[in-house]
Amino acid sequence: MMATRIEHDLLGNREVPADAYWGVHTLRAVENFPISGRPIGEIPELVRSLAAIKQAAALANADLGLLSPDRRDAITAACEDIRAGRLHDQFVVDQIQGGAGTSTNMNANEVIANRALEIMGHARGDYKFLHPNEHVNMSQSTNDVYPTALRLASWKGIQKLIGALSSLRVAFADKALEFHDILKMGRTQLQEAVPMTLGQEFNTYAIMIGEDEARLAEVSQLVCEINLGATAIGTGITAHPEYAERVRARLAEITVIPVVTAADLVEATQDCGGFVQVSGVLKRVAVKLSKTCNDLRLLSSGPRAGFNEINLPARQAGSSIMPGKVNPVIPEVMNQICFEVIGNDMTITMAAEGGQLQLNAFEPVIAYSLFRSVDHLVAGCATLEVNCVRGITANRDVLKETVRRSIGIVTALNPYIGYAAATEVATEAHLTGRGVYELVLEKGLLPKDRLDAILRPETLTRPSLFVA
Amino acid sequence: MMATRIEHDLLGNREVPADAYWGVHTLRAVENFPISGRPIGEIPELVRSLAAIKQAAALANADLGLLSPDRRDAITAACEDIRAGRLHDQFVVDQIQGGAGTSTNMNANEVIANRALEIMGHARGDYKFLHPNEHVNMSQSTNDVYPTALRLASWKGIQKLIGALSSLRVAFADKALEFHDILKMGRTQLQEAVPMTLGQEFNTYAIMIGEDEARLAEVSQLVCEINLGATAIGTGITAHPEYAERVRARLAEITVIPVVTAADLVEATQDCGGFVQVSGVLKRVAVKLSKTCNDLRLLSSGPRAGFNEINLPARQAGSSIMPGKVNPVIPEVMNQICFEVIGNDMTITMAAEGGQLQLNAFEPVIAYSLFRSVDHLVAGCATLEVNCVRGITANRDVLKETVRRSIGIVTALNPYIGYAAATEVATEAHLTGRGVYELVLEKGLLPKDRLDAILRPETLTRPSLFVA
Amino acid sequence: MMATRIEHDLLGNREVPADAYWGVHTLRAVENFPISGRPIGEIPELVRSLAAIKQAAALANADLGLLSPDRRDAITAACEDIRAGRLHDQFVVDQIQGGAGTSTNMNANEVIANRALEIMGHARGDYKFLHPNEHVNMSQSTNDVYPTALRLASWKGIQKLIGALSSLRVAFADKALEFHDILKMGRTQLQEAVPMTLGQEFNTYAIMIGEDEARLAEVSQLVCEINLGATAIGTGITAHPEYAERVRARLAEITVIPVVTAADLVEATQDCGGFVQVSGVLKRVAVKLSKTCNDLRLLSSGPRAGFNEINLPARQAGSSIMPGKVNPVIPEVMNQICFEVIGNDMTITMAAEGGQLQLNAFEPVIAYSLFRSVDHLVAGCATLEVNCVRGITANRDVLKETVRRSIGIVTALNPYIGYAAATEVATEAHLTGRGVYELVLEKGLLPKDRLDAILRPETLTRPSLFVA
Amino acid sequence: MMATRIEHDLLGNREVPADAYWGVHTLRAVENFPISGRPIGEIPELVRSLAAIKQAAALANADLGLLSPDRRDAITAACEDIRAGRLHDQFVVDQIQGGAGTSTNMNANEVIANRALEIMGHARGDYKFLHPNEHVNMSQSTNDVYPTALRLASWKGIQKLIGALSSLRVAFADKALEFHDILKMGRTQLQEAVPMTLGQEFNTYAIMIGEDEARLAEVSQLVCEINLGATAIGTGITAHPEYAERVRARLAEITVIPVVTAADLVEATQDCGGFVQVSGVLKRVAVKLSKTCNDLRLLSSGPRAGFNEINLPARQAGSSIMPGKVNPVIPEVMNQICFEVIGNDMTITMAAEGGQLQLNAFEPVIAYSLFRSVDHLVAGCATLEVNCVRGITANRDVLKETVRRSIGIVTALNPYIGYAAATEVATEAHLTGRGVYELVLEKGLLPKDRLDAILRPETLTRPSLFVA
Repeated sequence: MMATRIEHDLLGNREVPADAYWGVHTLRAVENFPISGRPIGEIPELVRSLAAIKQAAALANADLGLLSPDRRDAITAACEDIRAGRLHDQFVVDQIQGGAGTSTNMNANEVIANRALEIMGHARGDYKFLHPNEHVNMSQSTNDVYPTALRLASWKGIQKLIGALSSLRVAFADKALEFHDILKMGRTQLQEAVPMTLGQEFNTYAIMIGEDEARLAEVSQLVCEINLGATAIGTGITAHPEYAERVRARLAEITVIPVVTAADLVEATQDCGGFVQVSGVLKRVAVKLSKTCNDLRLLSSGPRAGFNEINLPARQAGSSIMPGKVNPVIPEVMNQICFEVIGNDMTITMAAEGGQLQLNAFEPVIAYSLFRSVDHLVAGCATLEVNCVRGITANRDVLKETVRRSIGIVTALNPYIGYAAATEVATEAHLTGRGVYELVLEKGLLPKDRLDAILRPETLTRPSLFVA
Repeated sequence: MMATRIEHDLLGNREVPADAYWGVHTLRAVENFPISGRPIGEIPELVRSLAAIKQAAALANADLGLLSPDRRDAITAACEDIRAGRLHDQFVVDQIQGGAGTSTNMNANEVIANRALEIMGHARGDYKFLHPNEHVNMSQSTNDVYPTALRLASWKGIQKLIGALSSLRVAFADKALEFHDILKMGRTQLQEAVPMTLGQEFNTYAIMIGEDEARLAEVSQLVCEINLGATAIGTGITAHPEYAERVRARLAEITVIPVVTAADLVEATQDCGGFVQVSGVLKRVAVKLSKTCNDLRLLSSGPRAGFNEINLPARQAGSSIMPGKVNPVIPEVMNQICFEVIGNDMTITMAAEGGQLQLNAFEPVIAYSLFRSVDHLVAGCATLEVNCVRGITANRDVLKETVRRSIGIVTALNPYIGYAAATEVATEAHLTGRGVYELVLEKGLLPKDRLDAILRPETLTRPSLFVA
Repeated sequence: MMATRIEHDLLGNREVPADAYWGVHTLRAVENFPISGRPIGEIPELVRSLAAIKQAAALANADLGLLSPDRRDAITAACEDIRAGRLHDQFVVDQIQGGAGTSTNMNANEVIANRALEIMGHARGDYKFLHPNEHVNMSQSTNDVYPTALRLASWKGIQKLIGALSSLRVAFADKALEFHDILKMGRTQLQEAVPMTLGQEFNTYAIMIGEDEARLAEVSQLVCEINLGATAIGTGITAHPEYAERVRARLAEITVIPVVTAADLVEATQDCGGFVQVSGVLKRVAVKLSKTCNDLRLLSSGPRAGFNEINLPARQAGSSIMPGKVNPVIPEVMNQICFEVIGNDMTITMAAEGGQLQLNAFEPVIAYSLFRSVDHLVAGCATLEVNCVRGITANRDVLKETVRRSIGIVTALNPYIGYAAATEVATEAHLTGRGVYELVLEKGLLPKDRLDAILRPETLTRPSLFVA
Repeated sequence: MMATRIEHDLLGNREVPADAYWGVHTLRAVENFPISGRPIGEIPELVRSLAAIKQAAALANADLGLLSPDRRDAITAACEDIRAGRLHDQFVVDQIQGGAGTSTNMNANEVIANRALEIMGHARGDYKFLHPNEHVNMSQSTNDVYPTALRLASWKGIQKLIGALSSLRVAFADKALEFHDILKMGRTQLQEAVPMTLGQEFNTYAIMIGEDEARLAEVSQLVCEINLGATAIGTGITAHPEYAERVRARLAEITVIPVVTAADLVEATQDCGGFVQVSGVLKRVAVKLSKTCNDLRLLSSGPRAGFNEINLPARQAGSSIMPGKVNPVIPEVMNQICFEVIGNDMTITMAAEGGQLQLNAFEPVIAYSLFRSVDHLVAGCATLEVNCVRGITANRDVLKETVRRSIGIVTALNPYIGYAAATEVATEAHLTGRGVYELVLEKGLLPKDRLDAILRPETLTRPSLFVA
């Protein structure tokens, strides 16, 4: 028989395992929300952020003379434990939960209280010495603690994603350099258009990612805006007038995140606009990464009856039935992550829209979705970089041949022979299968040396002066 | 100066143009909702459906002795006018409107009342002879009239779409027949897999569409379930106990749509599940049409450095700068319609979720989105069929060559030489650029006549007995 | 140092743990897809379905004389183990994976092969006796096995969800009975409309759910359609002409699911329409459950300054700061599940649209999303039923008072005093705060006994004959 | 019989109406895309932007000596005409079109060419004097002109929306001031929480909108980045090296929009990230406006059995059957607009993800969706401000009473009597229906004067020092 202790809440008494750091509030939540099987302890940054906030609050409360030094020290030590990665297995509430995050906050309050009691030499559950609500949660409410924790964890996630994107960007940029002199046909609407270099094509991916990094950096500032001091609905009820600024300063110290306090705490407490915008930017990142992976799969289509312009590194046998088949499995997994991120954005949109009056009760599913989006994108960028982009090679002969056979180079002749004549050459080339170059010469539309000058690669792939 | 008449509602008196068939309720709505600039009169099936319902109600009410014969006849005549396509320009309320459709219903009540008054020889606005609410709207509420009108109009829209899909399906099936003997390489994950015929490929599109037609036919039954007789919230307040069945029967007669009355009118009055499901099936249709158009664009990519397996008919010059360029513009427009339908489904989802208690106030935007989805899909199917599919041709030489050069045919040898040996052949073919056929012979893995038998087209493209 | 064995694939040799049932293909996949941290083994129905398919295939192949009895028996025994819940921890590939499910299929092939080898008395990895591709995967391809497994697992999930909904429906129906005589004001657009019973209101939820069960039952038929026998792209290459029907029959026997073989296997192999439609119906279910939970939260708003018509059972303390606060945490968690399901539908939509040519490479994320939707809905229905609906009580006094004070009952007088006079009474009641009943009497619009007859509950809450 | 002229393109000759300014390319497009029935001419800002670009290009080309002064002047005059609002009826191509915008660009080229020919004294269609492609489209491609036009029009739309939001924000701020002294109960999760002022509540809406304005201003910078000079795919083929900068400068002069040229034109030509982000921010705006409207509808629920805290101005009769009913029709229409914007964002997301290689072919549906989102939001803000917010009044007595009867004020006692004792008071209040104030006194938990001091409005609605 498991040893237990008795804890009490407004619904009555309940036994909790004697050695559990969590208490009755956590127990109720575990029973109420057996949904995803994924406890909040599996989001380490969220747990660490909660501990950082509780520590900052204890310090601020003690600074204001509201919390005794011994309680402050015990809470601080307990929070440091958690921030060092311990006790995360005590954060057992399901990530998908009702109650606007109260169960997450109470799980933290209880674990910290019991760890602090232990440090103080008291038994778990002996809350008269240090109470989860009265001391650990002092000057706080779920409604300022929980969103702040989500913001801190989001901030860290965004930084991590910027790092992963940056690394992926460099891989594309390196390939752009490697491929800078390989001429190929650019395509619009899947039809050959005009020439470019494979380096220009890959450089595009690098630049796109760089822009996404910039957008993420911008949006990360939105989640630095916290509402600690708001307490229940933003009016700051039960909080000391100096508390908000003190806890902010302490939190900035502890986390080294440039947190600022929102100008209006009532607004900040109910507003999920920041999360919507973060998710919107993640969606943007996903849209572009997915497009990039679509391109990689298309350019490497083949091996013989496709575009066959580049080769993705073989990573695994592609088929259980077709011997020797190799598939673009890495871009494919990234595509799927991107689809998930776009779906998550929809979930977040609905959850944010569903907020009512002074609070959004659906922040847990916002967090659940947002953290998955970030984590999976980080993982996807890493495998895309290491297991795919870094190993891409070009089929130089194929690419060269596409330019030689191309009809699209006729575009370069527009300024010299006019759109109408060029259209005739193109149409004839299309119908006869012949080349533009020979047709232009045959028709005497341009002398050979001038034609050669117009069709030099460096003329074709950048704006150029008129060839006299 | 425009001649006016005075009308009265609970907010007071207002002047309306003397010759307007609509009245004060419509006027208020026009002023309140200057949103999309698209009046409900631009949805002819909705207007006709409203008229059919009002006519059915007048007949049912008269049957029950609640409405006098002269009023019945005048209302009936007015409704017949509208059903014949007249007076649609009098339906001036914006399609995007608050008020749960009340403004649409009142617009109908007023136009019908004034047209009926005219028929009876009275002046417009002289409602003591025939009142928009008391007579035209007798035994009715917006909350049963409006959703019923949406359902009737949806039903007609679905039938139209089934017709357009059916026609498109036949076009694909005809092409499948035309291409039945053209061997090509099937592809999975954009890599060549094993052989198939181009006929099999096109037949797939026909079959997919056929399934969609079946799903649409199924779902159209859901919108045959109406809630006339529910009045305000489904309890049937102010309605005669026999009214629901009588009006249903009259409506079925008039519209020739097999309408049934919902088993529970309280539930039916607030439930938008039917619209959500219709839109869900439209989304399914869109997903598959978009995939089909993606395939058409891919298979016709080129003209020289792409798959280049089929040719879409040239429909317009593809570029303002690139002479002779022809693009897959028709599939492209269908893709975009499909994206719109998917977006509309999201709008409908949110509107349906936002319903509260006994009514969904957001049915107008459901209607606005649903009708656009249907209409644009119908238009898209027509242009796709006529301007694209019917004119597709195959590049037989290209296709033949892809099979000849293919590595994927090695799959057919699995049962004879084993997966491991087949993998070795495939790998060598890939590295050396040589053919599977010659390598198998060279290695003595199979005698030539057996190999030839295994690789016959009719063996490759269907399940086959072991070649001894 | 961990004992290992060497395995070989087209990329070369790799060491795998000696005691692992999985092999080199699984190893590659684990390295390629470190995305969600959730292995496929955490979806028991998927693993069981894979084993059922492999068992059916072995039996069919043996029936056709293609597989020796000893191999058939060993494969069968291995599959039975897995179907009994063993070895699920050997299914280690990430749920989010590239490769169109090949890694899942190969994980199954390898685990079954090695377990079968063990049963036959051979060492793991000694594939000359029984080969993952040649024997376990005989007559199969990922492209028919994987979607079939998803369909079987979806079918089971849908049945489970129908069960959970059915149970929830009964809870609502029981409450409807309990509340059948409690009169209240129905509301449209959050404004009081006309009277109804609380029983009618709760019955609505039961009926809505019943309809959803019917829709799920319908759509579950779509996923009974399998494509076994299609092999790589639907042409059945390498499969015996009788294989498709034999494996289907065997699978139906083993699973007791009424599987049918798709009429066209090329179409069936690439088509994700069934999954899109299943997800669309799940979205429909989510939309309506979310609306229902919104209603429950609204009707129980208070405790004093809200609607306060019903009481949800208290399940946990509602706040870390506000003593005694109790929140509607169970409906809130259901709302969030519903938002997730709607987001998942978007993911599935994009994944389905992204399929190309003969295969959809993105089925893994479809599966990942679909199974989460089903599982979370099942869990949500259970907690909603047990922890909320069953314990709901009504505030009879509050409800009675709302009817007594209501203006909306004036609607019942329409047929007696006309819409215009009724509007005047309502307006006066609104402005003065007085009651409709007294105003009607005071104005002498109706005699008291007739008014009383009109306003009897049984008259107000259903269609009624004219009160003379 | 209509007079016609003959025009020629790569598909052959076609008759166009003699007096049409548009030509053969437009004709083909009209025939190919009979989808929405909404011509591009209905988006005036798009047409004006196209004209501004063509004018800037003509000036830049003339500056570079590529275009003769007479052609420059004629083109300029034609563009000025269009920018002044003339000839918009000649922009007849459907808004939903394939071809990546080529038809829109050619419609502009043709209308401008023919108007310029007219100005020069030549007949329409006499393109040897001034050619749509060679002169009007000189140094341009659809692929730089069209996205640039979308960006300019988006920029203008965003500015207009910022203006509409700003005006709405002021209306909320004015109400906040008007209501600054009205105490009420704040609510979390639809349950009373702690006191606040109605002014604080309304101020929240003002602040939320202010933040949205700031986000829109930020994102509008993204669409100032143009790719003129890119021509077909960003390599600038056919363009003079100085053209990009010259056309940018001319365009900035003409439009007074601070356009900058993208750093990499290949990337900029294919990237739709800017539109995705704009739409993401519009979605954010929609989410918050919808939440605000949900709140307004909730706070005004009633008239008797709801929250009944505020009154929205009556705008129209709310029901065709329920006399005197008034509904929150203006917030309802805004909710629906917001749902549409969210759906449009999904369309845009899919269209952006579907872009391939050097171009996104689906920009027309992005434009169609984006412009509708902006226009409808602008219209919604206006009606919300004028027809709703400005007329809101407060039910002071109701609000006062909710605070008096509230249990939530017990939160303020936490620091004085502790969470546990406060929970007991709250529970007893809840069970007995008694007041917190009397219970605290009765239990002797605090002396009356201290309790009064703690419960003063100014203490309750902001952070406060400990009451000794």
